[in-house]
Amino acid sequence: MTDYKVPARDMQFVLHELLDYEAHCQRLTNGEDATRDVVDAVIEEAGKFCENVLAPLNRVGDTEGCKFDNGTVTTPTGFKEAYRQYIEAGWPSMIHPVEYGGQGLPESLETIVSEMVGTANWSWGMYPGLSHGAMKTIGTHGSDEQKTTYLKHLIAGEWTGTMCLTEPHCGTDLGMLKTKAEPSADGSYAVTGTKIFISAGEHDLAENIVHIVLARLPDAPEGTKGISLFIVPKFLPEGDGIGARNNVACGSLEHKMGIHGNATCVLNFDGAKGFLIGEANRGLNCMFTFMNGARLGTAIQGLSHAELGFQKSLAYAKDRLQMRSLSGVKNPSGPADPIIVHPDVRRMLLTQKAFAEGGRMLAYYISQLVDVEYNGTDDAERAEASELLAFLTPIAKAFMTESGFESANLGMQCFGGHGYIAEWGAEQNVRDSRISTLYEGTTGIQALDLLGRKVLQSQGEMLKRFTKIIHKFCQGHKDNAALQAYIEPLAAVNKEWGELTMHIGLAAMNNADEVGAASVDYLMYSGYITQAYFWARAAAVAQAKLGGSESDFYQAKLKTATFYYQRILPRTRTLHETIKSGAANLTALDAEHFSF
Amino acid sequence: MTDYKVPARDMQFVLHELLDYEAHCQRLTNGEDATRDVVDAVIEEAGKFCENVLAPLNRVGDTEGCKFDNGTVTTPTGFKEAYRQYIEAGWPSMIHPVEYGGQGLPESLETIVSEMVGTANWSWGMYPGLSHGAMKTIGTHGSDEQKTTYLKHLIAGEWTGTMCLTEPHCGTDLGMLKTKAEPSADGSYAVTGTKIFISAGEHDLAENIVHIVLARLPDAPEGTKGISLFIVPKFLPEGDGIGARNNVACGSLEHKMGIHGNATCVLNFDGAKGFLIGEANRGLNCMFTFMNGARLGTAIQGLSHAELGFQKSLAYAKDRLQMRSLSGVKNPSGPADPIIVHPDVRRMLLTQKAFAEGGRMLAYYISQLVDVEYNGTDDAERAEASELLAFLTPIAKAFMTESGFESANLGMQCFGGHGYIAEWGAEQNVRDSRISTLYEGTTGIQALDLLGRKVLQSQGEMLKRFTKIIHKFCQGHKDNAALQAYIEPLAAVNKEWGELTMHIGLAAMNNADEVGAASVDYLMYSGYITQAYFWARAAAVAQAKLGGSESDFYQAKLKTATFYYQRILPRTRTLHETIKSGAANLTALDAEHFSF
Repeated sequence: MTDYKVPARDMQFVLHELLDYEAHCQRLTNGEDATRDVVDAVIEEAGKFCENVLAPLNRVGDTEGCKFDNGTVTTPTGFKEAYRQYIEAGWPSMIHPVEYGGQGLPESLETIVSEMVGTANWSWGMYPGLSHGAMKTIGTHGSDEQKTTYLKHLIAGEWTGTMCLTEPHCGTDLGMLKTKAEPSADGSYAVTGTKIFISAGEHDLAENIVHIVLARLPDAPEGTKGISLFIVPKFLPEGDGIGARNNVACGSLEHKMGIHGNATCVLNFDGAKGFLIGEANRGLNCMFTFMNGARLGTAIQGLSHAELGFQKSLAYAKDRLQMRSLSGVKNPSGPADPIIVHPDVRRMLLTQKAFAEGGRMLAYYISQLVDVEYNGTDDAERAEASELLAFLTPIAKAFMTESGFESANLGMQCFGGHGYIAEWGAEQNVRDSRISTLYEGTTGIQALDLLGRKVLQSQGEMLKRFTKIIHKFCQGHKDNAALQAYIEPLAAVNKEWGELTMHIGLAAMNNADEVGAASVDYLMYSGYITQAYFWARAAAVAQAKLGGSESDFYQAKLKTATFYYQRILPRTRTLHETIKSGAANLTALDAEHFSF
Repeated sequence: MTDYKVPARDMQFVLHELLDYEAHCQRLTNGEDATRDVVDAVIEEAGKFCENVLAPLNRVGDTEGCKFDNGTVTTPTGFKEAYRQYIEAGWPSMIHPVEYGGQGLPESLETIVSEMVGTANWSWGMYPGLSHGAMKTIGTHGSDEQKTTYLKHLIAGEWTGTMCLTEPHCGTDLGMLKTKAEPSADGSYAVTGTKIFISAGEHDLAENIVHIVLARLPDAPEGTKGISLFIVPKFLPEGDGIGARNNVACGSLEHKMGIHGNATCVLNFDGAKGFLIGEANRGLNCMFTFMNGARLGTAIQGLSHAELGFQKSLAYAKDRLQMRSLSGVKNPSGPADPIIVHPDVRRMLLTQKAFAEGGRMLAYYISQLVDVEYNGTDDAERAEASELLAFLTPIAKAFMTESGFESANLGMQCFGGHGYIAEWGAEQNVRDSRISTLYEGTTGIQALDLLGRKVLQSQGEMLKRFTKIIHKFCQGHKDNAALQAYIEPLAAVNKEWGELTMHIGLAAMNNADEVGAASVDYLMYSGYITQAYFWARAAAVAQAKLGGSESDFYQAKLKTATFYYQRILPRTRTLHETIKSGAANLTALDAEHFSF
């Protein structure tokens, strides 16, 4: 069994047939070179690296983990050599500015590579993955000098980056953070405090690590309005390379459920030299540049674990012989039938397939919105993309990671008792995926962002922007009889989405707890409808191409769409009911009476 | 934070107030001594041992795991001493026959102790837990000589037992098993073969291990009708103790996702001396004695992980300060509110609470059916109990483990990013619980047992027996206005249960795959209704006791019941729809077209 096979055909379906990727790129300021040939070459070349180099290291990373010794972190065997190959091939530079050594290609290309890297080896992928956020933050908010000093090395992959937000007593509630930054005479700052859960915070892959750190100036206001952002490098830059060691050190590694190959660090800043980035006390705003990207990156993690779980369990289900099909022997020459004959095994496989392929459609669509937001040529389109992106980011992050975790578990379940044993990798996939609903804002936090900050604070406008797109799609296909099994339920649930939102909005006017009470169910409800929209679009594309040489492929798309509509979308029925049940059933019980 | 606190008040509620445990025992042939005082003393004494001895070893077991060295297995630090205390207190003997040194008390008492042991430390609990099945099997199917030889030592806990079914190429499909048993001149058999996934298959807690092994005689028919059952002790019995070492050895330990404290062994039988138990070629029938008990034991595992997840996350949610309540500051003197103020955290806590307390009601109810089946005084009642038990066993096993795993995950989610870190124990609870939906028959296998073997093969009779009980309960409370929020939806869904079953039965007459296609969703649907019945019963008990000194406790029961009806029972809406969608959406896709 191979560790991972790039799903190139499906990636091409989404990019070229569903999203008309080449035409999209040609409308960007930086997309001229992103022709179909280039995109397909990226899939092929990055794909080979992922299949041949990264995937075989996935279990190594889990088994060995990272070693900590007196401040030094050693990554698992093979990680360093793989990183060397990765930067030699120039992958870190693909989407970054040409003036600092990048290739300046559209952001969406990174999404494609991230999916492959992440599916092959999520723990490894986090080392270069975190760098993108640091580059983006410096590129957007840094001074010219900061860009010149840091971007070249980060883009070359010689240095990597981190984001340092969380402290022991606060994660979500960053207003409580205590790390201090005191001005020094030379214009820099002395940063002191403890940060935890710093992914890739210390390692041996690159010569330097650039920490992007939230801290407070001495005179800062309390709460979130008194937080500033600093660049704190592990080694201070000197000339065209590195100089003195800075006073930041890894104090320990966390013992985690999974992603053992990635170093999750406690970082101690002890008067470390830092450089203010952006305006004082506006650090949280700058950080959101980083954060939104990280949330989309984590959405891809959901897709990655769904794809990996699917590939592993599909191979096993075709191979493992156990029991006979209830509807008649299917493998008469063998001692039993392969378990893929059993409808319930197929239910588990199809659920993973629907979430992986559906997640891919949503992720690639969103990556095009990012392209347009940053490099669109039409201001109105850019504004529209930005608004849609703000609406879809929490859905993608939370829904795709929740469905990724569900998929990883279903994949493991297909193995029966063998799924619990490490050698098959199915249980590692579950453990690795489990963090995705926690970091970069839990599912609960995404849900409050969606329902509270986005939908209700915009008076429903942000929702309407998307439901109008769905409505228009449904209208456009209302006369195509072959698609009505998708179009009709989609139109119905799309209409219900607006009504339900209105219902929550009215209830929330009387009781703010109605928002929290509805939030997670509302996010998942929104996610199922969003996926239904993409599955209907996929069905429309596939329907039009039946009869050709790839009919089997398009038939499979239609059958998976049907599965989605009949077996997954009905989850909205429960969610509609639980959302309408209101807050009282959650708030009635006194905190002291939860147990006796 | 304590590792585990016995939920004594809720256990007493279920036993005494809901199930009238003392009266139940008094109607059994062996229940005279099981008075309320005795039951409460069992909870208190076993509870102390679980809280003080077993619970602190739970993390030790996870961290250290079992050590394997050339056939020898060393259990984690403290396990052996805890086992010594456990047998000294006489716990293994409680429910076993007086003539072999047991105390002869009702089986249901073991359920109570199992819950506490399992919640405190599931991995440890499996060592004595597996022995019960071996004792039961020998007690039911063994010859008098076998009982005399083995039961005394097993009941004293000096020896432990195992069940050896699975082989590398077959778990569910036992008809394929290859282990051979060849007759020897002395009437014993030489057993040869490899068994895998043998829990507690080798360890250092007891002086001997009694393996109950499925194997084939030389002239046995193929398939499940050619399987016989053997006793294969690690050391051959001699005099009143042990003699020569038998040719069975542990070849290796599995590397598992969780339950690290329990040794999951590959056992190699190399002409090991075995003794036929029961009739030749009827081994599978004998094994079901063991298997049904093991399934109920695993159901309790679901309850245990729900309870443990709930306790850990409740303590954290009261303690962790993060953000302010949307409906106004609740902790003005602190820097933030405890996260239990947030409705979505409450949703996660209440879901765990509802599954833990609901699972307890179902598990204890089922344990009374076991009592009546084995030791009832009325033949009609015994037959009725046996039939109800056959119907409820797959529901309890699969539904309680699925909801236990969901609960463990929700508990972990309450911790945010900290949940992913080992020190809190929340992620261990998830890993430990994950096996419960796999072993002793996966959820898929339980679902086929329920829908195929039990409900449809009995022409719906087995279902009707239970829906009648629910109907009668609803009728009995139809005039109590205060209970209608529970009674009306229960009556409606109970009626729907029968209609839906009829629908599946008719579809299955044309296509046997309809059974497999509906099975898991049907099992979960049945589980939600079964739980709704118990929550309505709990509400009825609580409603009648409002106003007294424990009003807070009973109010909490009613509020949890309301939560269950408004937030959990609606899951049946989705399942009803997906079940009715039929088999075609699962069977339409050719196995070769799942990926391209």
